[in-house]
Amino acid sequence: MLGRSRRLAVLAEGRFTRLDAKTAVGVLRYRPNEVAAVIDSTRAGGTAEACVGIGGGVPVVAGIEAAAACGADSLLVGVAPQGGELPHECRPMVRDALLRGWDVLSGLHVFLGDDPEFAALARERAVTIHDVRRPPPGRPVAARRAAGVDALVVLTVGSDCNVGKMTTALELARALGGRGLRAAFVATGQTGIFIADRGVAVDAIPSDFVAGAIEQLVVEAARDADIVIVEGQGALHHPGYSGVTLGLLHGACPAAMILCHQAGREQVRPPGGRAAEALSAPVIPPLRDLVRAYEEAAAWVHPSRVVGVALNTLGLGERSARQAVERTALDTGLPVADPVRFGAEALAGAIEACRGRDRATLG
Amino acid sequence: MLGRSRRLAVLAEGRFTRLDAKTAVGVLRYRPNEVAAVIDSTRAGGTAEACVGIGGGVPVVAGIEAAAACGADSLLVGVAPQGGELPHECRPMVRDALLRGWDVLSGLHVFLGDDPEFAALARERAVTIHDVRRPPPGRPVAARRAAGVDALVVLTVGSDCNVGKMTTALELARALGGRGLRAAFVATGQTGIFIADRGVAVDAIPSDFVAGAIEQLVVEAARDADIVIVEGQGALHHPGYSGVTLGLLHGACPAAMILCHQAGREQVRPPGGRAAEALSAPVIPPLRDLVRAYEEAAAWVHPSRVVGVALNTLGLGERSARQAVERTALDTGLPVADPVRFGAEALAGAIEACRGRDRATLG
Repeated sequence: MLGRSRRLAVLAEGRFTRLDAKTAVGVLRYRPNEVAAVIDSTRAGGTAEACVGIGGGVPVVAGIEAAAACGADSLLVGVAPQGGELPHECRPMVRDALLRGWDVLSGLHVFLGDDPEFAALARERAVTIHDVRRPPPGRPVAARRAAGVDALVVLTVGSDCNVGKMTTALELARALGGRGLRAAFVATGQTGIFIADRGVAVDAIPSDFVAGAIEQLVVEAARDADIVIVEGQGALHHPGYSGVTLGLLHGACPAAMILCHQAGREQVRPPGGRAAEALSAPVIPPLRDLVRAYEEAAAWVHPSRVVGVALNTLGLGERSARQAVERTALDTGLPVADPVRFGAEALAGAIEACRGRDRATLG
Repeated sequence: MLGRSRRLAVLAEGRFTRLDAKTAVGVLRYRPNEVAAVIDSTRAGGTAEACVGIGGGVPVVAGIEAAAACGADSLLVGVAPQGGELPHECRPMVRDALLRGWDVLSGLHVFLGDDPEFAALARERAVTIHDVRRPPPGRPVAARRAAGVDALVVLTVGSDCNVGKMTTALELARALGGRGLRAAFVATGQTGIFIADRGVAVDAIPSDFVAGAIEQLVVEAARDADIVIVEGQGALHHPGYSGVTLGLLHGACPAAMILCHQAGREQVRPPGGRAAEALSAPVIPPLRDLVRAYEEAAAWVHPSRVVGVALNTLGLGERSARQAVERTALDTGLPVADPVRFGAEALAGAIEACRGRDRATLG
């Protein structure tokens, strides 16, 4: 990961749950061989599987020393608190990791490499702090260039944050690859960057250049791909992050979108989960309305259609999950799948069909 | 301006035209007593009025020395090129200004205070470089808090960049003040900040925090105001900047919007005015469709209505201008005015009526 094969200690102190440790869960799912241990002193002694339902026997340990005993040689900061600061209780662990001569990989909004103490330690021990959210150089302004690529561009969009847009994109890329297509995954957030070893964290880019940064990534990825799957961010009706979502949509100029939703989620998840704000958190509109909103918003710059729904059925029993998939298909009139639980084939098929239509139109 | 009364040399080298020197024109209009000279060696010898139709006899001069002879004591970088770099030909002038012991005020995306040469010069001469686009500290995430303020929040929105959103907001604040209302102007771009001496350049903020930054500004401004007028940015269907527009809309949660448009503009103005891209620049939809798009997008987070249209008739003769205003009123069914040319009274009236309705509903 990021330059060499690693044995990671994934720091998820106090937050190693399915909902709060998005980055840790993503890395456990897609880079399992590089995780030596997860650090969460409040859950030490257990396994990743027991805490988050994935990661098998990867041990959960109390700190850096115990992670080193598991063979770790790098620290990945796997918490993503709202606002993006390093939680206070994590500071000593980052210090310890640097003192041991480990590289530190971070997806926080705050750049650990700019912290005077951490920077000095990294210099002293000749190790690297990778702040993957640091914006790339350059200030590109988008101008619909991604609409002109030969590859079919697909964007995952969502009903909220943390519903499965990245996972859906990765599963789609895999399923399309299985069909013999050259599918490129474009990472737009910190977890996706850890998994794909490249990408841009669009939420940290000055807002004028979000669409331009994505446009560049799509144009580059399209050179060697039949299909470019772009990881979406946020949601159009999210009070905090909607601007990121629209910039990404208009930069990528997708021909097709996959709408991602978590079964049973009725309100936008309040950032930080604060109770007072949960009361006033916006209600998620019906999926049909979301389909229409995304298609209208796309068409302001480049027409696009939602061609399928990825339904995250986490927490539902098998039977309820299958019922939720069927109900959503009836509600929306679209192919629906939980790509993690039941496979992404139905959605991959919808995308391949879309590509066929594109070629027929062009040809 | 920015801490003290100044005599500004406004740097607009090679670009002192109505369309290219937005910042210079804004400062000439709203802070005329602080402008000693405009620097544009390609137009030296003329007056501001002759070049941009405003600014009276303010001289246009060839460089820093000539500006000093006009009494200038500070340099305001009044160019805003796409991408936000300092144009190459302006570098020696910034250096000269610092060498003379002038403060430098800049709204560029690139921060002049981070330039090693300029920073060293500023230290040596004990002067200040004000980079007004530098994001404020903090990483606020918006959560519809601006929807809860007592003041009526109004946002100017647009059919494109550079159609008059800032000017309309300023003229509205003035007209509403004339009606005895406490109207606060919230600046969201570099020119607005120079004029208002405060504000945040939202296009330079990491995209996750655009809505949050605006929310904070609106909540603060609302404390001492009956009406908060927020300067809009970009346009919902602008390929490069739409994300900024939506973040601002969802952060401000306006109850009412004023749609700004330039009469006769049919396409989104291509950034940098490059001919190749002018051909493929998006067509601006009919104003009725824009009204609907802005109202739909607002309603994803907080309902809002477009209550009037500000029509920039720059370049039209008096009679054509009046006809354009009438035609737009017929097309949209809304009050229409060119606030600069014919006054903002019709729009101020629409906003005051809106405030009356709000109170009736609440009361």
